[in-house]
Amino acid sequence: MDDYGALQAHARDLGLSVGAINPNVFQDEDYKLGSMCHPDPAVRRKATERMLECVEIAGATGSKVLSLWFADGTNYPGQDDFRERKGRMEAVLAEVYRAMPPGLRMMLEYKPFEPAFYGTDLFDWGISLLTCQKLGPQAQVLVDLGHHLQGTNVEQIVAVLLDEGRLGGFHFNNRKYADDDLIVGSINPYELFLIFGELVAAEGSEREALRAGASAVAYMLDQSHNIERKIPAMIRSVLNVHAALAKALLVDRVALRQRQQAGDVIGANSLLVDAYETDVRPLLAHVRAALGCPAPEDPLGAFTASGYLEQIAAARKEGVAAGWG
Amino acid sequence: MDDYGALQAHARDLGLSVGAINPNVFQDEDYKLGSMCHPDPAVRRKATERMLECVEIAGATGSKVLSLWFADGTNYPGQDDFRERKGRMEAVLAEVYRAMPPGLRMMLEYKPFEPAFYGTDLFDWGISLLTCQKLGPQAQVLVDLGHHLQGTNVEQIVAVLLDEGRLGGFHFNNRKYADDDLIVGSINPYELFLIFGELVAAEGSEREALRAGASAVAYMLDQSHNIERKIPAMIRSVLNVHAALAKALLVDRVALRQRQQAGDVIGANSLLVDAYETDVRPLLAHVRAALGCPAPEDPLGAFTASGYLEQIAAARKEGVAAGWG
Amino acid sequence: MDDYGALQAHARDLGLSVGAINPNVFQDEDYKLGSMCHPDPAVRRKATERMLECVEIAGATGSKVLSLWFADGTNYPGQDDFRERKGRMEAVLAEVYRAMPPGLRMMLEYKPFEPAFYGTDLFDWGISLLTCQKLGPQAQVLVDLGHHLQGTNVEQIVAVLLDEGRLGGFHFNNRKYADDDLIVGSINPYELFLIFGELVAAEGSEREALRAGASAVAYMLDQSHNIERKIPAMIRSVLNVHAALAKALLVDRVALRQRQQAGDVIGANSLLVDAYETDVRPLLAHVRAALGCPAPEDPLGAFTASGYLEQIAAARKEGVAAGWG
Amino acid sequence: MDDYGALQAHARDLGLSVGAINPNVFQDEDYKLGSMCHPDPAVRRKATERMLECVEIAGATGSKVLSLWFADGTNYPGQDDFRERKGRMEAVLAEVYRAMPPGLRMMLEYKPFEPAFYGTDLFDWGISLLTCQKLGPQAQVLVDLGHHLQGTNVEQIVAVLLDEGRLGGFHFNNRKYADDDLIVGSINPYELFLIFGELVAAEGSEREALRAGASAVAYMLDQSHNIERKIPAMIRSVLNVHAALAKALLVDRVALRQRQQAGDVIGANSLLVDAYETDVRPLLAHVRAALGCPAPEDPLGAFTASGYLEQIAAARKEGVAAGWG
Repeated sequence: MDDYGALQAHARDLGLSVGAINPNVFQDEDYKLGSMCHPDPAVRRKATERMLECVEIAGATGSKVLSLWFADGTNYPGQDDFRERKGRMEAVLAEVYRAMPPGLRMMLEYKPFEPAFYGTDLFDWGISLLTCQKLGPQAQVLVDLGHHLQGTNVEQIVAVLLDEGRLGGFHFNNRKYADDDLIVGSINPYELFLIFGELVAAEGSEREALRAGASAVAYMLDQSHNIERKIPAMIRSVLNVHAALAKALLVDRVALRQRQQAGDVIGANSLLVDAYETDVRPLLAHVRAALGCPAPEDPLGAFTASGYLEQIAAARKEGVAAGWG
Repeated sequence: MDDYGALQAHARDLGLSVGAINPNVFQDEDYKLGSMCHPDPAVRRKATERMLECVEIAGATGSKVLSLWFADGTNYPGQDDFRERKGRMEAVLAEVYRAMPPGLRMMLEYKPFEPAFYGTDLFDWGISLLTCQKLGPQAQVLVDLGHHLQGTNVEQIVAVLLDEGRLGGFHFNNRKYADDDLIVGSINPYELFLIFGELVAAEGSEREALRAGASAVAYMLDQSHNIERKIPAMIRSVLNVHAALAKALLVDRVALRQRQQAGDVIGANSLLVDAYETDVRPLLAHVRAALGCPAPEDPLGAFTASGYLEQIAAARKEGVAAGWG
Repeated sequence: MDDYGALQAHARDLGLSVGAINPNVFQDEDYKLGSMCHPDPAVRRKATERMLECVEIAGATGSKVLSLWFADGTNYPGQDDFRERKGRMEAVLAEVYRAMPPGLRMMLEYKPFEPAFYGTDLFDWGISLLTCQKLGPQAQVLVDLGHHLQGTNVEQIVAVLLDEGRLGGFHFNNRKYADDDLIVGSINPYELFLIFGELVAAEGSEREALRAGASAVAYMLDQSHNIERKIPAMIRSVLNVHAALAKALLVDRVALRQRQQAGDVIGANSLLVDAYETDVRPLLAHVRAALGCPAPEDPLGAFTASGYLEQIAAARKEGVAAGWG
Repeated sequence: MDDYGALQAHARDLGLSVGAINPNVFQDEDYKLGSMCHPDPAVRRKATERMLECVEIAGATGSKVLSLWFADGTNYPGQDDFRERKGRMEAVLAEVYRAMPPGLRMMLEYKPFEPAFYGTDLFDWGISLLTCQKLGPQAQVLVDLGHHLQGTNVEQIVAVLLDEGRLGGFHFNNRKYADDDLIVGSINPYELFLIFGELVAAEGSEREALRAGASAVAYMLDQSHNIERKIPAMIRSVLNVHAALAKALLVDRVALRQRQQAGDVIGANSLLVDAYETDVRPLLAHVRAALGCPAPEDPLGAFTASGYLEQIAAARKEGVAAGWG
């Protein structure tokens, strides 16, 4: 638990992760046909016990978030019954929910496909929200930016979930095709800006509950750095997130609302474009300097120039085998 | 109203349509930026009045279904506020809902895009269901088979809505790309079979509410016959629907459930495949003969051979201009 | 022809369009099942004659571009034979190509669907390129940014066509879903920047043929302003295009190539990001001032403030009926 | 090589696979940024040598097919240069092609994404065909049914490649979302029927070259049986392929062509539907009996009833660890 504590502290310093407990290690043969939705009650029991154990750990460690993603689903038409599986998911989660201590939030992540290729049990925000509604107010939806069918308007889903008080958190990453898990903002930075726009607007709302919900949103990076070095990739990720947020904060929301009310389509859109076109790197350097960051102007360049990567790579070569990146 | 009565009677004979009132004629300039969600309260008022008038007509004519599709949405980021528009939709629909007579059901259709190309206000089944929940038990979701992003598992959505008692009805058609409005079952007949499988299973359920909900589902054809002759296209549509339904009825659901419970993936799937592979045309000919259909074996061939199409085409040429098909 | 000449001159002034002849007016009943690919040779003959007439007009007016988009395709499996249609397209275009004067380029646009919903005859860049190869060196591919399936990497297609000397021109617009015809750069400005990156790189190439091909690319706006005012929309479009181009010009391509060769994934990517993050509005204002633009700092704001739109709207109200926008 | 010979013989008996040599084992760290398209010439050299070795093995074993799929691509904009990578691919493949013995065909598989998530070097049929054209007549395109963006009309691509004499072979499988590698025909059996329709039509063509090309097409199953037992899955696959082929053979192609020429949209489509609706299981049982299959009526049921699976599972449990399925 020492390591975990250190990890939590580190995460808190980065301001990115929130010490979430994630029990998704349902990898053994028993879970081949599902965990929460498995047709065999014995397997569901086993999975439930694992979940209850996680809730207990969360209580013991003071974790505030129980972040859940289930690989449950089917690969072939007829393999199992959609409605029965839905009922099993609801029943198991209800038992877990009842065991949760007061301060813990359950976050239900959705995903349209993979590893299940015909039907995933929590396949979109709608089914996650429906499940949360049945559980209670401590259950919220987790939005992984890569878990949507092509064409999905993610910022609109964010707005809807905020409005319902059910946006729990994010898994940040980016994709061009499926769940590609690329660096956040690397493929479609404007979408990331628009998502932050919804969050900023909610945080500045006159509705107190909306403000509270928006400021409690948990942000996590969930990426796979298959070919790039991990530390530069994380720095790039943080830079991209900061830029999108800073630009979203620059939008003149009073003027925006006036133009929206007046039906001035191009005028309203141009307010977003103007904020987005602004170069926020000087501002962010200023903020980083104020936070005591040693290389506020160019964290990525400074890291590269430091030679740290080559240093640890050399050290590791003598020890354990190095993976890609 | 005589024509309308005749249409209703005809529709009832076909067993396809249900005399729905559809007030979606919001085409004039006022509605350019929306109807229910328009930023201007005066426009929303105008649209609401039109809706209330429809409710009144529904009451007067004994219509059981108020089928609603809204073109509301935005074309550009920033054009309007997602959350405000959501609130306007909920408020207007609540007023309409309160005016509804007891036997009338409101059906809320969703559509991901077109004519709005950035964000549609009722963009998927999840937001339609959420809206229905706020309105009350007489509000249900309408599923147009072409109104989904690529990859959507429509039969699973059907199963979820049935399970929630919120599946109101269908607009049948088929698509390969977007909302193509082709003949139902013409592009992916297996998907249509799987959708009927969910309906048949629900109708045979031991849960009485589920049975009742499934048997109250309203079926409508909503297609565009741009290049093909309309009457043969409608016959083809009915044949495709009948085939999918007949095959879904052939599935041995007791054996299916046993194999599902046993985790027999290929065995369970094969029960569906075997039903689907069955040639149901002789059975359907038998049913049609029992119903007194004049050409039960081959309705399409008989119609073509009758020369009726050429006859009315010739008659029309002398009168009004004939359109495509 | 006076009007056309004026249009051409105007287009030249805008630096946007190139006086293209576009014969795609195959709207009458004869073309219901196709024009170039119609099963009936008489219809193909009629369409061919129309095309030959366009070639003649192009010669007479000195137009350099024959821009072709065909609605040809099928709506249902079996409706027509893919290979036969392909042969018809090749034969008709060969006849048209042979009639072309030396300085004229034929541009073949592709589109995956709409108005055909099962199979479009020129459905992607690959089939357009294949057809161009058979015709000869004056035939090139036209890329409409909205004519791709979801997930398509458009900038890679641009790079391939440039490399083959077959990129004829662009129809600029943007989309989130299908062929939405929104303002260029309004949904995914980073993609537009990456496309311009390929063009800028080719224009700076050491291969002379590549440079020549890239500088001959024809740029056209092809958008539908359904809800927004047309003149502000066009100003917004030009601003978006200029911003994307200016940012693409800022990329340090020598350093980029070095990092690419060194396998520095994050470093290479960050060069693009840094150029993209730069605020190019001051630079563009400077360029516009040098070009004598009356309001170089804020063309859109200046136009809105001018009251011109209200003025012509008032004038038109007394005359012809005003459309949306 | 004895095992390989046995495998080849077995494959020939199944009539499915063709003893292809597949050198795609570029998994070590060197290939992290590509094999054929890697920026480092030393890595390209290493990969080329591996390919040349495969060509040599193909010559020695009499293999007729060199089946190539490359994981090459990039994950981030700017990571590498699209045109340079294209040039590298063409150069390396030209060297490999020149080394090929006369009877060997090179098959170039394409894939839109995965494992590369920004741009794959051979991303669609168009770029594979273009590459084949540059190599020579022994180079052909391989179509993996799961390697297409959503909405792609695969049967039309098959028709185009057949018409060009460039369809080398298939990797059969099925998908609902991305490259799901499910059992062929399990998600969209009608698409499989339409693909076989193109093959059957080409085999029956009056053009001799077309007939020859179609009959030389190589068929391979390329599936992942993650949750289902492998042997039943393979039997299911063969049953699905046989059914689709048998139905395609039932289409009255003379009548079809007549209706196509006459512009009879519904009539032509209905000929396909009627063939597809036919139950071909009795016919296939007859064919299997003629081929000496021990359980011609129900191969899957007979295999299940045989208890063979349980038998080998028990045997393996005592020996090596059993995987899923």
